Amino acid sequence: MKKHNFYAGPSILPEYTIKNTAEAVLNFAGTGLSVMEVSHRGKEFVAVMDEARALFKEILDIPQGYEVLFLGGGASTQFCMVPYNLLNKKAAYLNTGAWASKAQKEAHLFGEVVEVASSKDANYNYIPKGFSVPEDADYLHITTNNTIYGTEIKEDLDVNVPLVADMSSDIFSRPVDVSKYALIYGGAQKNLAPAGVAFVVVKTDILGKVDRPIPTMLDYRTHVEKGSMFNTPPVLPVFAALQTLKWLKQQGGVAEMQKRNREKAALLYDEIDRNKLFKATVTNHEDRSLMNICFVMNEEYADLEKEFLDFATQRGMVGIKGHRSVGGFRASTYNALPIESVKALVEVMQEFERKH
Amino acid sequence: MKKHNFYAGPSILPEYTIKNTAEAVLNFAGTGLSVMEVSHRGKEFVAVMDEARALFKEILDIPQGYEVLFLGGGASTQFCMVPYNLLNKKAAYLNTGAWASKAQKEAHLFGEVVEVASSKDANYNYIPKGFSVPEDADYLHITTNNTIYGTEIKEDLDVNVPLVADMSSDIFSRPVDVSKYALIYGGAQKNLAPAGVAFVVVKTDILGKVDRPIPTMLDYRTHVEKGSMFNTPPVLPVFAALQTLKWLKQQGGVAEMQKRNREKAALLYDEIDRNKLFKATVTNHEDRSLMNICFVMNEEYADLEKEFLDFATQRGMVGIKGHRSVGGFRASTYNALPIESVKALVEVMQEFERKH
Repeated sequence: MKKHNFYAGPSILPEYTIKNTAEAVLNFAGTGLSVMEVSHRGKEFVAVMDEARALFKEILDIPQGYEVLFLGGGASTQFCMVPYNLLNKKAAYLNTGAWASKAQKEAHLFGEVVEVASSKDANYNYIPKGFSVPEDADYLHITTNNTIYGTEIKEDLDVNVPLVADMSSDIFSRPVDVSKYALIYGGAQKNLAPAGVAFVVVKTDILGKVDRPIPTMLDYRTHVEKGSMFNTPPVLPVFAALQTLKWLKQQGGVAEMQKRNREKAALLYDEIDRNKLFKATVTNHEDRSLMNICFVMNEEYADLEKEFLDFATQRGMVGIKGHRSVGGFRASTYNALPIESVKALVEVMQEFERKH
Repeated sequence: MKKHNFYAGPSILPEYTIKNTAEAVLNFAGTGLSVMEVSHRGKEFVAVMDEARALFKEILDIPQGYEVLFLGGGASTQFCMVPYNLLNKKAAYLNTGAWASKAQKEAHLFGEVVEVASSKDANYNYIPKGFSVPEDADYLHITTNNTIYGTEIKEDLDVNVPLVADMSSDIFSRPVDVSKYALIYGGAQKNLAPAGVAFVVVKTDILGKVDRPIPTMLDYRTHVEKGSMFNTPPVLPVFAALQTLKWLKQQGGVAEMQKRNREKAALLYDEIDRNKLFKATVTNHEDRSLMNICFVMNEEYADLEKEFLDFATQRGMVGIKGHRSVGGFRASTYNALPIESVKALVEVMQEFERKH
C-alpha cells in the first residue's frame, strides 16, 4: 500500500534526496567509499559544503553581507546561541507557541526579555498583531511557523529592531525578503534534510557586539570564519541538504514551492471547512499554516476521533495524529509532499463522512 | 581497485553499518519510509534509540549510576559543556595535543584552569607521566587518544579527582573500566557512526553541583531526564551507531577489538621500525597509539615523501597523508579497518623500499 507521509518532522523528503543519499551511503562521488566514512577535509566533501552554501544563497536570494552556516545540533541549540551572540541588554520575543516559548526561556539567562505579545491565552491558535517592540531591544525574535498549533506568519514583518526568525518548519516554502532579517535559523529536518543539522543565515555585521565571552562552538563568528568547517560538520545531513537544494532549484525554486503549498493547503482546508465531521483549530484564515494543517472532530462527532485515526492509518496515512497539546489531527504538507497525498487524505475524509 | 580507508575521521565503518544504513535510507524497519523522514517519536525510532543506549552500556560494561547520551554536535561542543556542568572553581587539564588544548581553552571561560603537564615542547610526541593533580580540582580532563600526533593513554588512570575523558578516537577499541571515570565523551565519527552525533557516558551524581545557570541544551541533566530525546536527535547517525554496536557485539566486543587492534598496530609499527626509508614519530613504544600510526621519511630519504604518497595512493591507500602539524604519513587503524588493509600498506612500503 502506498504510504502518505504527513509527519510533522522529521518529515517527508524528495525522492531525489533519498535516492541520491542511499547511493552515496554505498559509493560517494565515485570514491568507492561511503559518504559516512570519508574525511570532511577531502576535496569531494569540501565541494559538497561549498555547493550547499552557494545554492542555499541562490535559492533564497540572499543579499551580500550575509553568511549561510550548517551547524551540528538543532534549532534548540540556536535558542541559546541567539542571545549568547546578540543579547546585550534587552531582547523582545513574540510568543506564538511552544517553540517560541522555549526560545524565549533561554534568553532570560542573558538579559532582560520583553514578551511583545502572546497567543497563549487561546492555546496559540492565532498570530498576535499590532504589538509594539521596544526601540532599545537588541532584536525581536519570532517563530514564523508554529508546527504544533498550525499557525504561520506568511509575510516578512517590518520592525524597528533587528529581526531574528526561527524558520525551522517553513524555510524554502515561500520567497523570503532576507534583507528584512538579521538572522534566520532552523533545524533542517522539515523542508531540507534529515535531522542532525541546523542552518543559520546571518548578517555578519550584527556579530561581535556583545561583551560576554562566548564559548568557541557557540560563537557564530567561529563558523563564519571557518565556513562551517571549524569542527567536523554532520557530513551526511549536509550531503542530503544539498540534494534537496538541487531538487528545489530543478522544481522552480521557492516561488513554485509557494504556489504548490498554497494549492495543497487550500485543498485540505476547504475539505476541513466543508466536511461536517471536522473543523480547523485555526479559525483566522490569514494565520493558517501552509505547512501544518491542524483539525479536530466537530463536537457532535468527538467520539469518532480514534476511529478516524485508525480508518486513515489503514488507508496509508502516516503521522496525522495531532500533537497532544492540540489533539485531533495534523497533516504536515511540506514542500516534498505531493498534492496526490493531500487528495488521498481528502478522499479518506470524504469516505469517512459518507460512512457516518 | 580495492580502496584501503586510512582516514583519521570521519573514517572507515563496518560494511554491516554501511549496508544496513543504505537499506534504511530507502526503507526503514519495514515502514516503507526512509529513516531520514520518520518521526523520532515513532515507535520504530524510539526502539532504535533504546537499543543503542542499552547496547552501548552492555558492550562497554557500564556500571549502575551512569547514563549514556547521544547528542547533536560533536566533541567540540562537549569542550564547553564539560566545564559548564562540572567546573565550580578549578579544573585540571592534561595537555597532550591540539584537541586536549582546545578543550582546555574553553574551560578558561568558567574558572581557574591548571595544566598538570604538557608535551607541547616535543610536538606532543609522548604522553606526560608522573604529574600531580591539585586535590581541590573539580576534575581532571584527559584526551585518551591524540589523533593528530599518534599517542594514546592505553590504561585507565587512577587519579584523586573526578576523571573526564575525551575518547573520540579510541572508544570501543579496548575494554575500559568506566567506574574510574566521572564522564567520558566523544564525537562518534571514528569507531561508531558517521559525523553528527556525540556520545556521553556520565555518572549522574556528579551533575547539579555548579551554581551557574546552564542553557537547557548544554545541561546534561536535560538529556539524562529525556533519554536523549529532549529535542530531535540526529536520527540517521544514531541508527548507524546502533548498527556498529550490533557489529561490535557480533565480533566479540571490545576485548576482541583490542586483540585485533594490537595485531594491526604491531604489524605496521614493526614495518616502520624495520624499513630503512621510514621512522615513527612516537618513539616511546608505550605511548604509541593503536588507532593513528604516524610516521615520516627517515632524514636521508626526506625528498621521497611526495613520491611515496603518490605511490601508495596509486595502489589504493586512502587518507594516509599526515596532519600538517606532524607531516609525513598517518595510517588510522580503527576497529573497522581489516588487517588486510594494514598488510596492503606494509607491502606498498616494502615495494617502495625495494625501488630505492
